[in-house]
Amino acid sequence: MTGNGNKNFTGNSNNSNSNGNANNAKNKKVRVVIIGATGYVGIEIVRILQSHPGVEITAVIGQSFVGQRISDVYPSLRNIFDMELTGLDIENLPSMGDVFINCLPHGISKDYIPALLKEGKKIIDHGGDFRYKDVRVYEEWYKAKHELPELLDISVYGLPEFYREKIREASLVANPGCYPTCSIIGIAPLLVNKIIDTRSIIIDAVSGVSGAGRKTDLAYQFCECTENFKAYNVSTHRHTSEIEQELGMLANEKITVSFTPHLAPMKRGMLATIYANLKDDMASEISCEGLVSLYREFYRGEMFVRILDQGRIPETKNVAGSNFVDIGIVVDKRLNRVIVLSALDNLGKGASGQAVQDLNIMCGFPEHTALMSPGLYL
Amino acid sequence: MTGNGNKNFTGNSNNSNSNGNANNAKNKKVRVVIIGATGYVGIEIVRILQSHPGVEITAVIGQSFVGQRISDVYPSLRNIFDMELTGLDIENLPSMGDVFINCLPHGISKDYIPALLKEGKKIIDHGGDFRYKDVRVYEEWYKAKHELPELLDISVYGLPEFYREKIREASLVANPGCYPTCSIIGIAPLLVNKIIDTRSIIIDAVSGVSGAGRKTDLAYQFCECTENFKAYNVSTHRHTSEIEQELGMLANEKITVSFTPHLAPMKRGMLATIYANLKDDMASEISCEGLVSLYREFYRGEMFVRILDQGRIPETKNVAGSNFVDIGIVVDKRLNRVIVLSALDNLGKGASGQAVQDLNIMCGFPEHTALMSPGLYL
Amino acid sequence: MTGNGNKNFTGNSNNSNSNGNANNAKNKKVRVVIIGATGYVGIEIVRILQSHPGVEITAVIGQSFVGQRISDVYPSLRNIFDMELTGLDIENLPSMGDVFINCLPHGISKDYIPALLKEGKKIIDHGGDFRYKDVRVYEEWYKAKHELPELLDISVYGLPEFYREKIREASLVANPGCYPTCSIIGIAPLLVNKIIDTRSIIIDAVSGVSGAGRKTDLAYQFCECTENFKAYNVSTHRHTSEIEQELGMLANEKITVSFTPHLAPMKRGMLATIYANLKDDMASEISCEGLVSLYREFYRGEMFVRILDQGRIPETKNVAGSNFVDIGIVVDKRLNRVIVLSALDNLGKGASGQAVQDLNIMCGFPEHTALMSPGLYL
Amino acid sequence: MTGNGNKNFTGNSNNSNSNGNANNAKNKKVRVVIIGATGYVGIEIVRILQSHPGVEITAVIGQSFVGQRISDVYPSLRNIFDMELTGLDIENLPSMGDVFINCLPHGISKDYIPALLKEGKKIIDHGGDFRYKDVRVYEEWYKAKHELPELLDISVYGLPEFYREKIREASLVANPGCYPTCSIIGIAPLLVNKIIDTRSIIIDAVSGVSGAGRKTDLAYQFCECTENFKAYNVSTHRHTSEIEQELGMLANEKITVSFTPHLAPMKRGMLATIYANLKDDMASEISCEGLVSLYREFYRGEMFVRILDQGRIPETKNVAGSNFVDIGIVVDKRLNRVIVLSALDNLGKGASGQAVQDLNIMCGFPEHTALMSPGLYL
Repeated sequence: MTGNGNKNFTGNSNNSNSNGNANNAKNKKVRVVIIGATGYVGIEIVRILQSHPGVEITAVIGQSFVGQRISDVYPSLRNIFDMELTGLDIENLPSMGDVFINCLPHGISKDYIPALLKEGKKIIDHGGDFRYKDVRVYEEWYKAKHELPELLDISVYGLPEFYREKIREASLVANPGCYPTCSIIGIAPLLVNKIIDTRSIIIDAVSGVSGAGRKTDLAYQFCECTENFKAYNVSTHRHTSEIEQELGMLANEKITVSFTPHLAPMKRGMLATIYANLKDDMASEISCEGLVSLYREFYRGEMFVRILDQGRIPETKNVAGSNFVDIGIVVDKRLNRVIVLSALDNLGKGASGQAVQDLNIMCGFPEHTALMSPGLYL
Repeated sequence: MTGNGNKNFTGNSNNSNSNGNANNAKNKKVRVVIIGATGYVGIEIVRILQSHPGVEITAVIGQSFVGQRISDVYPSLRNIFDMELTGLDIENLPSMGDVFINCLPHGISKDYIPALLKEGKKIIDHGGDFRYKDVRVYEEWYKAKHELPELLDISVYGLPEFYREKIREASLVANPGCYPTCSIIGIAPLLVNKIIDTRSIIIDAVSGVSGAGRKTDLAYQFCECTENFKAYNVSTHRHTSEIEQELGMLANEKITVSFTPHLAPMKRGMLATIYANLKDDMASEISCEGLVSLYREFYRGEMFVRILDQGRIPETKNVAGSNFVDIGIVVDKRLNRVIVLSALDNLGKGASGQAVQDLNIMCGFPEHTALMSPGLYL
Repeated sequence: MTGNGNKNFTGNSNNSNSNGNANNAKNKKVRVVIIGATGYVGIEIVRILQSHPGVEITAVIGQSFVGQRISDVYPSLRNIFDMELTGLDIENLPSMGDVFINCLPHGISKDYIPALLKEGKKIIDHGGDFRYKDVRVYEEWYKAKHELPELLDISVYGLPEFYREKIREASLVANPGCYPTCSIIGIAPLLVNKIIDTRSIIIDAVSGVSGAGRKTDLAYQFCECTENFKAYNVSTHRHTSEIEQELGMLANEKITVSFTPHLAPMKRGMLATIYANLKDDMASEISCEGLVSLYREFYRGEMFVRILDQGRIPETKNVAGSNFVDIGIVVDKRLNRVIVLSALDNLGKGASGQAVQDLNIMCGFPEHTALMSPGLYL
Repeated sequence: MTGNGNKNFTGNSNNSNSNGNANNAKNKKVRVVIIGATGYVGIEIVRILQSHPGVEITAVIGQSFVGQRISDVYPSLRNIFDMELTGLDIENLPSMGDVFINCLPHGISKDYIPALLKEGKKIIDHGGDFRYKDVRVYEEWYKAKHELPELLDISVYGLPEFYREKIREASLVANPGCYPTCSIIGIAPLLVNKIIDTRSIIIDAVSGVSGAGRKTDLAYQFCECTENFKAYNVSTHRHTSEIEQELGMLANEKITVSFTPHLAPMKRGMLATIYANLKDDMASEISCEGLVSLYREFYRGEMFVRILDQGRIPETKNVAGSNFVDIGIVVDKRLNRVIVLSALDNLGKGASGQAVQDLNIMCGFPEHTALMSPGLYL
């Protein structure tokens, strides 16, 4: 039996309700189960949701730590959220919650998603499996057979800025990859407004090391990563196909992009530096000032997309720990090229924050609930 | 005139109240002025208070950035808290708020504290000026004449675990130093319970670089700090006297300690490794298990002091970004010595978090309000 | 009077000659003066040259530390090289050495270079002043009037892989910028072999923080840099013009490039990720394997340029602390685009190491003398 | 068959001898075999020895990478030292070299050390096995049975500052641990001169992460280590017993010490902050100035021990990458306590550098050969 993670402090009379989310109407809270809760994406979702006033986390599932409290694995949570970790019990899973957030890698969720859907549950999945419209693209880039291709028809790509209404109705939301979120939000206004040569898009992107997940791997050991900078999976990263799919739908034509991910010696943060040639016939009339206006118009009302003033450039520390995307725009008139800089937290808007944003939409909460932290900066 | 920092998002129908702290009863909020808001202590207070449901920040004062928005200086706050920075206008200061938090270094607040007190305002001060009972100790360790010694009679040392009731009634709270907070909380149960030889206390402590503040100094440049570890101010650090004063009052005798601060290549975090000899006549009956119980009893009801289970050792990442202190205890039976490890965030419980905790007590809010964040861990 | 930096150890009978570079033929050593020796470029030259068997450092000039030993400023040099720092005495400067290495920023060396040249001295200059063929390009990108334009006719661009014979005869060598060294070496074989569309070159580059020099600046404080990644000077960095000049001469046509520098949270290291479209008529016959061969042929005999095997990607830790450039090549057949990754140490081959390489050529030493350190990796 | 690691560059006429250590008298070089060459201690020995003029590395043994070149595992060595890694072939091992440096953990070398000794070979061992005089101490602290206790009579503790003459004659040298080297050198002058209360010694020490070796372990992943500081093995670390043994012999009495190791977020570097009470009868006459003189006298002629001027404090960046130990001394007259700060590179003087120093002594080379690098500082 799992313990109750919402531990009240004892002995302090000012504090009858330690984290503000236990209340008499507990039954009305949305019950959320987090599968793969001890990975970096999972624990960040726990961190966000433990302060969500409308959510009750009813189970944290982590196969490697069954029987330990999650605060033994992440002692930062001690006295705040001490729920016991449980194993994945597929048979009883559907009864454990209303919304299931899967933080395990692609390929695994197939074992229990059909049963959850059958029971009318909602699912937010972090794998690549359900992000694709065309199963062949998935199979080509993931080098794996898709086991549930029929679900691609009902799954919704969980990027609220583009699919908010579909997410609201969805049972199965595929949370986008971090690089695609960062890239698509950065490029979309240029494509939709037909400003750039669609064959010229180059995305040069950098991620903090947490993007690799909490795996034990020589390449991610401290002494191997610190004071080092490198590219990886040059021209072959799976997220390329995800970016191309979404940009293609926005542009209404087939889009291909160069995409090069890099690893920087920091925990969190992602920056995409995006290059595209201005269309010949538009180059003379495009200014940086104009593009800033155009982006602001495009993202009007989108609270998590911040378009910087002309001349300002995003830095990852301004978004680390938050759900924001910061976008800066430079027009190089000398070369008729636009450079868009898009920054987010790979664990925030790039993964866990966005999952909670999706959950808020799916469950009818204000979209920013539990997501208005400004991050730490330092 | 300063703008309103509580900017509502526009254009998103789900979000009529972006940060949850504007309400109809706005007049009843405690109006807080932060002096020195762009330093690291100041901005961390802003970060915490912008989500405090009972507080309205009415002015952020930063002499070097007058006229800029605070979110221009710290773009992490963009769209969340965009208040304009103002200069220090001593004449009009009292009318600007109910509580004034001074984050400037020692010696400066003397210019306006008397006027604030005269007007019945509450003050939380981050300098060393009002932490001392004996003005001579201040003057000896700070190598400066104290300009307002008469205020030492009314100022209260802002360590809630020991002075909660006095803080509740205080007009002038001297927020403790980071090293003293970390050390005193770690040592107090040993002294109060008369377990250790009071002449044997050695505090070996380590701080992240943010402890030096947001100053531009060669010693704190990235290339000078990263991949480096060093001690500084060995046996001469001012905080020694503050620690000795408080330990002396707890022990009811004069206490002297060896205190050695070090600088580690990280932003936030502080760890004190504290050594003391067990009293000869008690050594045989003291066990680690027993001390863990004793500490838990001592801090019963203190929500921000977490005594770890026997065998567990604190790490700064578990408290970074939070208001917690984590304490681990080791008894070395071989040497009849106890080693206490005390960890906190030098900007959290070591400065800004504790200031908000004091504010909560002074203003009648639940003590944990706006302080229950678990930190980021990563 | 300056002391002798080559301090012998005393009292150890095994060690009559502490650093192996004092010998009976001391008079025959090349006497080197380092101007601006306490900056990061300067001190790295000191570090390399103190073990150079054919060089005697005769003066280290550092205006801010006159009278201190250089090992007081950089205690890593204690007991190895303890020479006293002197001020810049322009009148007596020419008599102090045979080769003068200027590590001060652009614009300063004009005060003493003419006198040095008149006396037949050799100069290696680290500023941008003498890197240009066309004074107008310098004045446009540096926003400054050039005071000695007539010297552009005699100055040689100090990139040995392309100007070795001219360097051998030169009196005035302009040491290239770090980004240009990294970029030009990476792109040259593509241009010379006419493989790419010359209008499609995009250079996305990342530097460690030491590239900013040893200046005291808020932006380079530890807490502002660590755990942060950002671009800067997007499309306006001065090195763009230097890259374009050299690529233009290699291609025999005007070349323009997009160049975006970024700052990564590490001390040393630079990586350029370079994109270019393959020419339409060549795309089908270009393979990664073929390009690796072509690069190896192009750089045959160049000991400091390491072309990696197909499938391997450079990392900055492999070149940090060394004078090597590591180059990896990827051909994206899907997009007919080549991606070249070029890595060096911004203080090694990107500045100080290359200066020593130039010095070796100018003075007739084997080119690798004092430069065969493999770097630390960790 | 293993390749020759000393690869000549081709095609550059200036460079007939790339790394300066191949010569006609090759037969006279000392042939060194490195067992466990791909760990951090092993590779640092390779890095140092590849530039040693009197040494030929004849084999690099690394079970996990047999058949790969060592420069495939550490690409920093590419073109400098490309020798192929071989497995451990115990039968043929003795014929492969003159000196064998074992970098594998304790317990493993027992399988081949007897055979090597029988063949008259010299061995430098990095495990704890042969550092002890009393086998019971080893067995108690290492929780393991010692398989070759008879060798403790012939093994020599490889700390040249104390055992130089024994090392010169030794067949089996046990290279000291990093913490013991740092601590013993820091404390010895106090003990030998009978200045301190021998029961009051406390060693609070900090290491960079490379001290944990090149193992793949969750605790040493980048995201778990960076921005974190912690203690570990408090009062139970094995090195305690090694420190106590050596200090006991210096003091001619049984010595016990408190020893607390910590982990700092950096690659290399170690700092020990050592506390001891001055003897009551000596306290009045001991000054910092006096102790600095006493330390300098004690270490006269020791080229790798640098006693800092009064008022200066060591920092790890000054010794990182070098074989130096920097020692600073503070006397706290207020408390009659001395604080000694001792800094070294855990992979330099703390492991690999010291092994080469031992090798130089054992083989009759000048003791500083290949060890005079000042480190990188940055």
